[in-house]
Amino acid sequence: MLELNAAEAAKTLLSQDNILILTHRNPDGDTLGSAYALLRALLSAGKTAGVLCADEIPQKYAYMWAGLPALQFEPQFITAVDIADEKLLGASVEAVYGGKVDLCIDHHMSNTKYAKSLFLAECAATCELIWAVLQEMGTALTPQIADCLYTGLSTDTGCFRYSNVTAETMEIAAKMLRAGANFDTINRVMFETKTRTYLKLEELVLKSLEMYFGGRCALVTITQEMFRESGSNESECDGIASLPRKIEGVLIGVTLRERTDGTFKVSLRTYAPLDAAKICGKLGGGGHARAAGCELNGDSLTTEKQRLLDVIQTELENI
Amino acid sequence: MLELNAAEAAKTLLSQDNILILTHRNPDGDTLGSAYALLRALLSAGKTAGVLCADEIPQKYAYMWAGLPALQFEPQFITAVDIADEKLLGASVEAVYGGKVDLCIDHHMSNTKYAKSLFLAECAATCELIWAVLQEMGTALTPQIADCLYTGLSTDTGCFRYSNVTAETMEIAAKMLRAGANFDTINRVMFETKTRTYLKLEELVLKSLEMYFGGRCALVTITQEMFRESGSNESECDGIASLPRKIEGVLIGVTLRERTDGTFKVSLRTYAPLDAAKICGKLGGGGHARAAGCELNGDSLTTEKQRLLDVIQTELENI
Repeated sequence: MLELNAAEAAKTLLSQDNILILTHRNPDGDTLGSAYALLRALLSAGKTAGVLCADEIPQKYAYMWAGLPALQFEPQFITAVDIADEKLLGASVEAVYGGKVDLCIDHHMSNTKYAKSLFLAECAATCELIWAVLQEMGTALTPQIADCLYTGLSTDTGCFRYSNVTAETMEIAAKMLRAGANFDTINRVMFETKTRTYLKLEELVLKSLEMYFGGRCALVTITQEMFRESGSNESECDGIASLPRKIEGVLIGVTLRERTDGTFKVSLRTYAPLDAAKICGKLGGGGHARAAGCELNGDSLTTEKQRLLDVIQTELENI
Repeated sequence: MLELNAAEAAKTLLSQDNILILTHRNPDGDTLGSAYALLRALLSAGKTAGVLCADEIPQKYAYMWAGLPALQFEPQFITAVDIADEKLLGASVEAVYGGKVDLCIDHHMSNTKYAKSLFLAECAATCELIWAVLQEMGTALTPQIADCLYTGLSTDTGCFRYSNVTAETMEIAAKMLRAGANFDTINRVMFETKTRTYLKLEELVLKSLEMYFGGRCALVTITQEMFRESGSNESECDGIASLPRKIEGVLIGVTLRERTDGTFKVSLRTYAPLDAAKICGKLGGGGHARAAGCELNGDSLTTEKQRLLDVIQTELENI
């Protein structure tokens, strides 16, 4: 494995042709913004190139590929963007390109170094690294490329909200604005829009709010009846799961979501030093330190909910 | 009325002493960030100065004045920051300082030019103008000043989300990050944390949701009864005002807020091409293109609400 800097990555790309750019499965704004910005840069350099994603790409990102040709070609050089591990290519893409990635450009320090060459650096978004490569390639910054790169910066930072933002992130975003990035529309699509059914569900869920342990734990319950009444469904529950932790003073937010079979999915969101994965681990689940999950059996919900609260109480007492 | 630029405003301030800085009533991150950044700059220049606000300042902004002395002095020079109209001083402050503002620094192009001198420029936040003045004053940028200015930039743009952001906004924010602004904690407090009373208010307000004009206009009403039931108050209404526009397909979000005297404050939030200031202007109010306000007389609420809706309908038909 060869470690490259931006200039070397740019030189490598310009020395190749028929370049296939891979995104990770379940694609987000950063992997897609990286891929389409690089694609547009390669096309403008006269290369034949394309983007491949194992999963369907949500239509809200359609501006990234607007006006681009869908080229048919035999890939000769494989590039992966924003992909820490080959497993994240998704099964269908990994089956074809596993072990064959020539160049990886990535910002995850957990990168498994699966590619033949790697441009890896710690920053808020892989799009920051793509911008560095594009500058080395001498790419003209078009509004379309600015849209792609801005999307990665914005979506990987919660719109410049989180601790991963650096002064460089803000400066690159400023350059994208100067280049004509359609940033307000992008942010509106990525962050602002809520469906009426989601708002109705939120209203119903808020009524279920219970507070425990001196206000340090907040618990909400989503029932199948609430889905029916609001017209919402499970796909809209991600936002709800982050709600209870947002309450002032709360260290651990718990969301119980009733399944159609009457069992409950538990989603925990914590602030440091509470470890969500540890708590869920004690109940047969798992996840990350700040976000984890487990299951409750609906038959004995009261008992199981009490067991969950007991585990949480113990963790709170050990802070 | 004398129009000043940043250098002239700086020179004026440095030529004075015993400077009182006024914020607008119902204070937000921009008026407070502007006031406390300027206060810290003036104190570091050896001046006697203080900040005055008609309303109680929410404790979440306490980092702005941490470590500052509360000076007793007879004000000799009155500065207003982020205040478009003397009425926005709040009754108690306007009673004393109405007609007596020496210098106003503001970014609202609807400024009524009530001050003896005015540094007015169009930008996302008054904090951008304060930063220009501080540079002219030769102020050393401390982490504390960076916290104040970052807060104004962030809160007046929905954390760099809205169309009022410019490349300059991002560049100034980058400078604040380099100066050590505690940006992630600030963003967590300003955007992530919700009080229980706010959540209860949101739940009650969501029940009042009305949709008009084929789903392009959403209207919510906050009543005094809702404040009583939720334990919330006017200081928590900013988030609510941005709620109706978030609904998918909505171009104009309207929030009606009942005052204790039974009149209603109207907050409009629009997406382009709808001009919120134009709509509010037709009803005796004003503001910005994307966010503006006006008043409704509670006596004839039904009639006045219809008048507002009629104006909105006309604007929607003219898109």
